[in-house]
Amino acid sequence: MTGTLYGVGLGPGDPELMTLKAARLIGGAKVIAYPTLAGGSSFARSIAAGHIVPGVREIVMDIPMTVDRAPAQAAYDLGAVAIRAELDAGHDVVVLCEGDPFFYGSFMYLYARLRADYPVEVVPGVSSVMSCAAVAGLPLAARNEVVTIMPAPELARRLSDTNPTQILPPCDTLVVMKLGRHLKAVRAAIEGAGLIDKAIYIERASTPDECVMPLSQAPEKAPYFSMILIVKGADPWL
Amino acid sequence: MTGTLYGVGLGPGDPELMTLKAARLIGGAKVIAYPTLAGGSSFARSIAAGHIVPGVREIVMDIPMTVDRAPAQAAYDLGAVAIRAELDAGHDVVVLCEGDPFFYGSFMYLYARLRADYPVEVVPGVSSVMSCAAVAGLPLAARNEVVTIMPAPELARRLSDTNPTQILPPCDTLVVMKLGRHLKAVRAAIEGAGLIDKAIYIERASTPDECVMPLSQAPEKAPYFSMILIVKGADPWL
Repeated sequence: MTGTLYGVGLGPGDPELMTLKAARLIGGAKVIAYPTLAGGSSFARSIAAGHIVPGVREIVMDIPMTVDRAPAQAAYDLGAVAIRAELDAGHDVVVLCEGDPFFYGSFMYLYARLRADYPVEVVPGVSSVMSCAAVAGLPLAARNEVVTIMPAPELARRLSDTNPTQILPPCDTLVVMKLGRHLKAVRAAIEGAGLIDKAIYIERASTPDECVMPLSQAPEKAPYFSMILIVKGADPWL
Repeated sequence: MTGTLYGVGLGPGDPELMTLKAARLIGGAKVIAYPTLAGGSSFARSIAAGHIVPGVREIVMDIPMTVDRAPAQAAYDLGAVAIRAELDAGHDVVVLCEGDPFFYGSFMYLYARLRADYPVEVVPGVSSVMSCAAVAGLPLAARNEVVTIMPAPELARRLSDTNPTQILPPCDTLVVMKLGRHLKAVRAAIEGAGLIDKAIYIERASTPDECVMPLSQAPEKAPYFSMILIVKGADPWL
């Protein structure tokens, strides 16, 4: 009998926004696995820390941050080999995932490598999108409104193709994730579309470093864990 | 000192997909509030049931299901009056919300009525979108892919305006929620757009009645708690 691979969503950062199921699986795990970025500490492990039992085996995948995808994929290859060895020995492996495993999560790279050979269970988590809306006090969508979620690098790519009023997709609520170095370009696009007054900037929602402010007052540089919410509909309110 | 209004997300249905924070707040609540639909039982209360303590006061808002919005809004008016009385007496009120409170959630109607006068905290929950992706084994989005979430009634409305190839928004991943009586029209639109082979139908994800199947095999009638996922990107996989 092989072990089961669990992809466990940990939520946006506040350890209390983890699900009961995630806490149970982490607390019972003999083997956990998680990525670190370029030798740094693991945000995912820090969220889960209070539930990890002493003596657990930890498979750490150090993911290089390069524009070329090959080095990161090679790191997932290595991680998958180590996870395979545990699963083949009949041990379950709990992969720690920030937010939700299948929503812009790196778990899918392990899933792609292992799902054909082992039982896999994905435990969904609270997405940072919902957490940002909660801390901003901004209902995201009501009734039949359309929500579009766009990573900032895609928005920046479109900006270089066309004019700023056409790059934002038609929708009632627009969520721009993964701002990082693209914040300035994204802000210009939002200004160009006449939406700056509706744009809220949120950084590291649900963590001690959380910031919420109008986009017009946001700093020049944003971390990766930041987001802009634009809710156009007046509909949510009554 | 007035009490605090909590809008607490309960996740998609499996009580174990509730957050630790939601479980703590419900377990400590002396007053809870929740909607029921047209005299039926409350799905939200059933998710939370294992954490509700004996002797809690329950504010039940019976929401009529009518096309006209006024009767439902009158029911939220009544609920808000009852909640106000508790908050004014210094009691916290925990509002039970299926999924996430600010993502197509009825909590926003109470929020609109009460937020100016009382402290409010929104506790985000696992959305059914993430739960459906998890049970379907289908990563929703990777890297810089664009995700659009559209309620089925809006899709049906567009169908009556224009031709089926134009009603689906351009995106890498399309999520169609709240299928209900619109399933047939939605399926026709997806067939018209040549996307039927990529469309997965999911009903009541994470509950004992969960169903997952290709949209091409889905039943003619869908419940409100059902969804279609269309992931076009090949990108997630490697």
